[in-house]
Amino acid sequence: MSAERLIYLPLGGAGEIGMNCYVYGYGKPGQERLIVVDIGVTFPDMDGTPGVDLILPDITWLKENRDRIEAVFITHAHEDHVGAIGHTYEDLGAPIYARAFTANIARRKLSEYGVAETAVKTASKWPETVTVGPFSVGFLPISHSIPESSALVIDSPEGRVIHTGDFKLDKTPLVGEPWDPELWAEVSKDGVKALICDSTNVFSEHPGRSEASVGPAVETLVAGAKNMVVATTFASNVARVKTLAEAGERAGRSIVLLGRAMRRMIEASVETGVLKGFPKVVPVEDASSIPRENLMLLVTGSQGERRAASAQLARGKYHGMELKDGDLFLFSSKTIPGNERGVIRIMNQLSEKGVDVVDDSGGAYHVSGHANRPDLEALQDVVQPQIVVPMHGEHRHLREHVKLAKAKRRQGVLAVNGMMIDLSGNEPKVTEYIETGRTYLDGSVQIGALDGVVRDRIRMALNGHVVVTVILDEDDEPLGEPWCEIMGLAHTGRSHAALVEVLEEDLSQYLGRAGSKTLADDDKLEDGLKKIARQSCNNEIGKKPEVTVVVSRLT
Amino acid sequence: MSAERLIYLPLGGAGEIGMNCYVYGYGKPGQERLIVVDIGVTFPDMDGTPGVDLILPDITWLKENRDRIEAVFITHAHEDHVGAIGHTYEDLGAPIYARAFTANIARRKLSEYGVAETAVKTASKWPETVTVGPFSVGFLPISHSIPESSALVIDSPEGRVIHTGDFKLDKTPLVGEPWDPELWAEVSKDGVKALICDSTNVFSEHPGRSEASVGPAVETLVAGAKNMVVATTFASNVARVKTLAEAGERAGRSIVLLGRAMRRMIEASVETGVLKGFPKVVPVEDASSIPRENLMLLVTGSQGERRAASAQLARGKYHGMELKDGDLFLFSSKTIPGNERGVIRIMNQLSEKGVDVVDDSGGAYHVSGHANRPDLEALQDVVQPQIVVPMHGEHRHLREHVKLAKAKRRQGVLAVNGMMIDLSGNEPKVTEYIETGRTYLDGSVQIGALDGVVRDRIRMALNGHVVVTVILDEDDEPLGEPWCEIMGLAHTGRSHAALVEVLEEDLSQYLGRAGSKTLADDDKLEDGLKKIARQSCNNEIGKKPEVTVVVSRLT
Repeated sequence: MSAERLIYLPLGGAGEIGMNCYVYGYGKPGQERLIVVDIGVTFPDMDGTPGVDLILPDITWLKENRDRIEAVFITHAHEDHVGAIGHTYEDLGAPIYARAFTANIARRKLSEYGVAETAVKTASKWPETVTVGPFSVGFLPISHSIPESSALVIDSPEGRVIHTGDFKLDKTPLVGEPWDPELWAEVSKDGVKALICDSTNVFSEHPGRSEASVGPAVETLVAGAKNMVVATTFASNVARVKTLAEAGERAGRSIVLLGRAMRRMIEASVETGVLKGFPKVVPVEDASSIPRENLMLLVTGSQGERRAASAQLARGKYHGMELKDGDLFLFSSKTIPGNERGVIRIMNQLSEKGVDVVDDSGGAYHVSGHANRPDLEALQDVVQPQIVVPMHGEHRHLREHVKLAKAKRRQGVLAVNGMMIDLSGNEPKVTEYIETGRTYLDGSVQIGALDGVVRDRIRMALNGHVVVTVILDEDDEPLGEPWCEIMGLAHTGRSHAALVEVLEEDLSQYLGRAGSKTLADDDKLEDGLKKIARQSCNNEIGKKPEVTVVVSRLT
Repeated sequence: MSAERLIYLPLGGAGEIGMNCYVYGYGKPGQERLIVVDIGVTFPDMDGTPGVDLILPDITWLKENRDRIEAVFITHAHEDHVGAIGHTYEDLGAPIYARAFTANIARRKLSEYGVAETAVKTASKWPETVTVGPFSVGFLPISHSIPESSALVIDSPEGRVIHTGDFKLDKTPLVGEPWDPELWAEVSKDGVKALICDSTNVFSEHPGRSEASVGPAVETLVAGAKNMVVATTFASNVARVKTLAEAGERAGRSIVLLGRAMRRMIEASVETGVLKGFPKVVPVEDASSIPRENLMLLVTGSQGERRAASAQLARGKYHGMELKDGDLFLFSSKTIPGNERGVIRIMNQLSEKGVDVVDDSGGAYHVSGHANRPDLEALQDVVQPQIVVPMHGEHRHLREHVKLAKAKRRQGVLAVNGMMIDLSGNEPKVTEYIETGRTYLDGSVQIGALDGVVRDRIRMALNGHVVVTVILDEDDEPLGEPWCEIMGLAHTGRSHAALVEVLEEDLSQYLGRAGSKTLADDDKLEDGLKKIARQSCNNEIGKKPEVTVVVSRLT
């Protein structure tokens, strides 16, 4: 047996849904040539990442091994798979391979960073392959909720690995290639070492439904609407957008696309030829001349995003469009956990306007883009892999997926972010733990999740902030009284005096009794003033704030 | 027709789920004698209310009309109905009426505020009534997810109003009184002017299921468990806690209650006689001597609350108990929208420990405590009210509920918080808009939602905080350089120099070119420094922070 080995290393997406980033390597230990599969983002929230713009995988390990990276492969154009290529391209410096539609989206992203179009190479679908270092990689079509989603067939001297990307088993996906079990069986017939597999819907017990099943219900709904109709879904779900548009067209309505992502995705789909026969679209500027009952708006913001078209329409006018009593608003989408509050806020704002809101709670107007449990089993039956390595899932999904594999008498490996798995030989094993994590895009800079910056923001949000200023003269004697500013704290408390006055009084007394040793020592003085400020606030208003002390010494 | 009128005024709960507080009045306009129904709380979140401890209804209007308040009636002991009585008792100064179990819980709350037990008067159930001012009020039993939940039969010279409180139509609620349509028909037979009705589940299409339907599934699950079993539900759902405990007992397990609310609720239920035959409970201190496979823990924290027993067990040891590989954890509960992230966090932590998590996604282990759409219709059919006024719901629920009433050819009134409705005569009408809102309990003080305090916290969390200190001498000349402290901001940006140094340099230059007029004027100087600090940060790190400027003048 050679000393070469095949490794798999998730850097994002294994132990979470979103921020996918996986590495494969082949070669002698520590010298493996590497390929990266997907570099996605995940989205911040007020709970854990206030003020952050975007969350990227921590690619420190890749940067340290930059000279070993052969290429980056993108399975499909969802943000959690392609979203970070712009932010990481310079650091990785490797060519990016993707199919035409995905490449189109990727190039748009890179161009924002001034990266040349040629950085992204358009790959053809299987049976064509790309050879990079010891790997031969093919894009194997599979259905999902975005055009040209592909699994990767990754061949190396250690055998064939199939990395599914995101997928569902849909024989009538409307846009993009259908699930083709014969093709997959053919690809798998000489043996597949490992199936690295999407786990998102492992807890969904029933077989997944086809995209084609959504159409009739939408059509009936739109046909019955009397006033303006608005529908929202993920812009990248081009098939759904088409279904919605066609329902509008059949009901004699003009279609208007609202929101940047919506226009961008349809544009990319048409440019790359994946979308054919999309109904004629009317620019929003021309919509005012069309009777409202003949309009259907397709808008962004199905997850309640505050700046997207849905939220803006719910609040008031948007590009001259305004919702009114008796209009219909359709959420042709599922609310991702954590986004409920934003979506519900919109629903209530629409209710206040008298708009009838329809969502998928009855199961008629949306289908998932991911393989459910029976579909995962069906895929295993077709591929017959030696090993199943669940990816794209929280820990509970990965664990359940491993159980599912074992129930089917296959090897299952629970690998979370940072676990380097040696897939060589008969028994997969963890060979190393790589430090991974998250990088925050914050304004225009990247900061580490553990830098303490966001932690400080959360502390200020929970506790408020007191700023104490003290000036000392050349002899370390206080010059005047200490000065306090408060932010995010009640202005008065128990004593009914202004909180800043109580604070300044307490701090002043402290300075009065502080010894010369303390007054001469910045650290001691700061600690003392902080402690007093916190005690004083706690007495007055029952909160212990963050305190910043500024000691100025005249010299 | 007399000049007297009957009014209804929601101060909380109408336009939101939670924080219930409703007012009824009878008398001449502006001189109506008042009763208050429920004074509940709602819970803060990081998105909108970081650092806040509890959210209370704004009772300014009640305080202004304190001398007109006859009494407070509490329908049941859920926090969103009784939670604010401790914080508002002094302001209202009115006696509180509740049935025994609710009164027991209310007294425990008031005692924390040093209010005497006698403040809460125990009322008997219908047909007994309490007469206060022009009102006669009876507690009419109805099933819900807590013992002794009651509708209120509110009689005045304008006729009978029924205020449902929270309810479901459950003929086998296991604990507490079953839904009794004959009794309700009897109460309603002489005509009900208005039904003020719970709207929470108006979008649920199927008839609600009985609490009794949960038992068999739980029993099967627990009987099949091999190691330790933990189950969580709302502690106040005493029937469910009993169902869970009985399933454990039948499987030969000792029952341990974990979490303060869990012990408090069971204690109150036993004290007041509503809970009979609850299995024997073992103190947690004695649990270590019992084999793990013979234990069943009933714990708080079904909504993912960080400090509750569930979260603590998921993180590590709690009161000596520790979860292990192969244990079973049951969420016998529904996740309230907005709490998903916390619950999912716990599920994943449990998954990491190898614990099997079962939740209600299959619909077997939980039933709702609220009336579904067909149940709301059934209630209308029994009560036959002239007017339906939906309450306890977001705007979309109230609106849908009004539609439902109208579909049944009844009058429906959409009244949100602050709308005073005149229920006299044949046509209900809005007579006045009262300013309402939310009051935050923040540490030990109450602050208004619009005071700006929490807004400042959110701003610091989103934007970070820069503190600029400048000292000027007697001649308004800067003494030394300006000093910066940053909190919640990246330490370095575009220029790779320390952000504070770049800031101080830019501010120093500004001071250098500032005219004597600016230097002499605190406001101008502050504005100028703020602007520069924000620009400088925006250049370096792409963020515009909150800036506090401290100008100290030596005099």
